[in-house]
Amino acid sequence: MSDKYIGIFDSGIGGLTVLKSIVRSLPEENIIYFGDTAHLPYGTKSKRQIEEFVLKDVEFLSSFDLKAVVIACNTADSTAGHLIREKYDLPVYGVVEPASKKAALVTENNKIGVIATTATVNSKAYIKAISAHNPKAEIFTAACPLLVPMVENGRFRKGDGVIETVLREYLEPLKEKGIDTLVLGCTHYPLLSDLIEHICPGIKIISSSDEAASILKDNLSDINTSANKGIRKYYVSDNPEGFKTQASFFLEGELKEEVILINP
Amino acid sequence: MSDKYIGIFDSGIGGLTVLKSIVRSLPEENIIYFGDTAHLPYGTKSKRQIEEFVLKDVEFLSSFDLKAVVIACNTADSTAGHLIREKYDLPVYGVVEPASKKAALVTENNKIGVIATTATVNSKAYIKAISAHNPKAEIFTAACPLLVPMVENGRFRKGDGVIETVLREYLEPLKEKGIDTLVLGCTHYPLLSDLIEHICPGIKIISSSDEAASILKDNLSDINTSANKGIRKYYVSDNPEGFKTQASFFLEGELKEEVILINP
Repeated sequence: MSDKYIGIFDSGIGGLTVLKSIVRSLPEENIIYFGDTAHLPYGTKSKRQIEEFVLKDVEFLSSFDLKAVVIACNTADSTAGHLIREKYDLPVYGVVEPASKKAALVTENNKIGVIATTATVNSKAYIKAISAHNPKAEIFTAACPLLVPMVENGRFRKGDGVIETVLREYLEPLKEKGIDTLVLGCTHYPLLSDLIEHICPGIKIISSSDEAASILKDNLSDINTSANKGIRKYYVSDNPEGFKTQASFFLEGELKEEVILINP
Repeated sequence: MSDKYIGIFDSGIGGLTVLKSIVRSLPEENIIYFGDTAHLPYGTKSKRQIEEFVLKDVEFLSSFDLKAVVIACNTADSTAGHLIREKYDLPVYGVVEPASKKAALVTENNKIGVIATTATVNSKAYIKAISAHNPKAEIFTAACPLLVPMVENGRFRKGDGVIETVLREYLEPLKEKGIDTLVLGCTHYPLLSDLIEHICPGIKIISSSDEAASILKDNLSDINTSANKGIRKYYVSDNPEGFKTQASFFLEGELKEEVILINP
């Protein structure tokens, strides 16, 4: 019944798709969101550097009274999630494990594609996690470095030839492998799901953002039933105005709360 | 006659186009290059954040025995160049002033376009610098946020429909203004110059990288005539392997020297 916060973080804005899914399934929970916009993107950086950023992110979040941490960034989770789980005595929820579990379960032909950032692909975290749930699965990963900048520049809508061409380049090799299931292994990618469904008809699309929220709902024992509920606080390490503008793409509606600049 | 270093820095890899031009015109000079790859890109960050990064970049470079600093990044120069010029008692060369001077000189109809990152456009540095040289000039700027990620992903070659489409979107509104001169106001853009010339026939293209090297050659009094010459040292704050791979795009040839990781 605690009104403690769920602390969510991402390299920047993509984690808002996770927040949105969490708000939908757990509307009464109080949430702190932190976007490390001074250091985005994480997906092109090294493991060492991502680890350093992620430790600082959680250090900032842990200055609040938290009931759980959600790593709302596949790059952070796949590269540095283990460090957070070791260091903090808090429930830590990620995106890789929930999406992997779902993909392993729903595939019928055991051929699963994963699209993600370069760092997430290099971590092999999806291969390990899906294999653990379904040892028969063949997993095909594709690094898609242009999707994050495209989405952040508003290029995620049907009829935009540029994003359609880039998506087809990334997805055709996976389709040729005969996948029946595709994991959107980056929290920016749910904005592309209509386009991806259009390019990949008949393939089951798994959103790591939705799966993360679903696992959180199933496992969060300390549900908020207090009167102090539905609070959302947003912090970023750079450019709060830009974050607020872009947030409307990700939340499909205006972000009404103030976005607070901090220097962790 | 000093064998001191010329210190060059950029947010990452783009500054290598400036280095390449400097090596061509001043082959005997010793050069330290620093790419702040842990914090790239600068072009989407806030003024406050860019200033903080740039001060650290020059602090690192100034640990060497320098004869000059070259800000090989339009975002850094336009946003934080004044801080470096105030703080350090060293000749500081930028990219904005040389390109502006050349554009102001060569335009015949006084209509000049500038393409650059969002932060460079927001700084209005090109408008101020070109106007100072040519008060009659009308200056049209366009922020081109997708060009840096495209170039860094190797998409700068003729026949690539995606980069051609994106470039046309950015350039057509400038062409419609009747510009006769276009400044490539980002050190990544020289890789796109063939494509830009193709899209903008008859328009004079000014590379901030080439102009920076040209001004440095004209003004560097302390030329290296010692036997200790032509040394190049490369430092980055993250991912030296990635830097080395991408460097071949920018240098049009393999980078033979070691790339050293530092944590400034």
